[in-house]
Amino acid sequence: MRRIAYGVAAAMALLGAIARVGVAPARADADITADFGMSLPPGYRDWRLISVAHEEGKLNDIRAILGNDIAIKAYRDGALPFPDGAIIARLAWNYTSSEENNKAFGGPQSFVAGTPTNVQFMLKDSRKYASTGGWRFVQFDDGKPVEAARLSGCFACHLPVKARDFVFTKYSP
Amino acid sequence: MRRIAYGVAAAMALLGAIARVGVAPARADADITADFGMSLPPGYRDWRLISVAHEEGKLNDIRAILGNDIAIKAYRDGALPFPDGAIIARLAWNYTSSEENNKAFGGPQSFVAGTPTNVQFMLKDSRKYASTGGWRFVQFDDGKPVEAARLSGCFACHLPVKARDFVFTKYSP
Repeated sequence: MRRIAYGVAAAMALLGAIARVGVAPARADADITADFGMSLPPGYRDWRLISVAHEEGKLNDIRAILGNDIAIKAYRDGALPFPDGAIIARLAWNYTSSEENNKAFGGPQSFVAGTPTNVQFMLKDSRKYASTGGWRFVQFDDGKPVEAARLSGCFACHLPVKARDFVFTKYSP
Repeated sequence: MRRIAYGVAAAMALLGAIARVGVAPARADADITADFGMSLPPGYRDWRLISVAHEEGKLNDIRAILGNDIAIKAYRDGALPFPDGAIIARLAWNYTSSEENNKAFGGPQSFVAGTPTNVQFMLKDSRKYASTGGWRFVQFDDGKPVEAARLSGCFACHLPVKARDFVFTKYSP
């Protein structure tokens, strides 16, 4: 019975929260769009995984690509173009040899994520960013936004994957 | 007002769900532990990211390490040993050169996740699996569980990281 009482109390609290959301709907989404590019989107580190990759060369990173709920749903549904509100995050870390893992594996074969390099995001708003395929590209170095001029080449680089709504990363099952 | 009504209806439905959970608590967790190793843990592909890695050699894969809520909380709190119920998932895909990405970057530098290889899990139950550091190790090939004999070496391999409760992967911010 005590558990039921807790459940009821929790539900009543939630009821209040939901009623408040009802009065000021979609507050969180609106804020993300409005502030997008000014600060890291809240909760992005909790987003679900789309895929992983490794870049050699100057970047020399290992990366995870995450998506907010709208992006993940679109990927899983195979729905293109991505709907407005979709956000794709690319987190990258320095590509780092792991001595500890190599010992366990018995050979120099293991590479892990070291210190973070930067975080990039693509936000879909088909009207607001119509001139760049409906996407806004932003980047954060140490949590601070990079000036737009440095990102002016993003869209041109993504043009070859126009057929996938300008998104390189494919979903990994 | 209609939004508030929706909110109230949703909350009432949730109230019922919570009351039911109150009567039969922790059903989902109990099921995961009971069936663990028989089938892929429900929803594991939605778990949050711990880190990423690349293994060369025979494995030649690129991998993501995900955690259920209990595991993620322990990582972020820096709490060791991991509490019972923590599950860590290692998803791996064939390490695949991306021609498409290479063209965009202007050089042969990009490696992505190809077809899945297998999925491994560590489940913490300090009493049930006391003889292997409190962890049970399981693996699924094409969604089917691998026989226990093939995994008998897992714990020995994890012994060098006893100080981190036998877990190799560190959390990547």
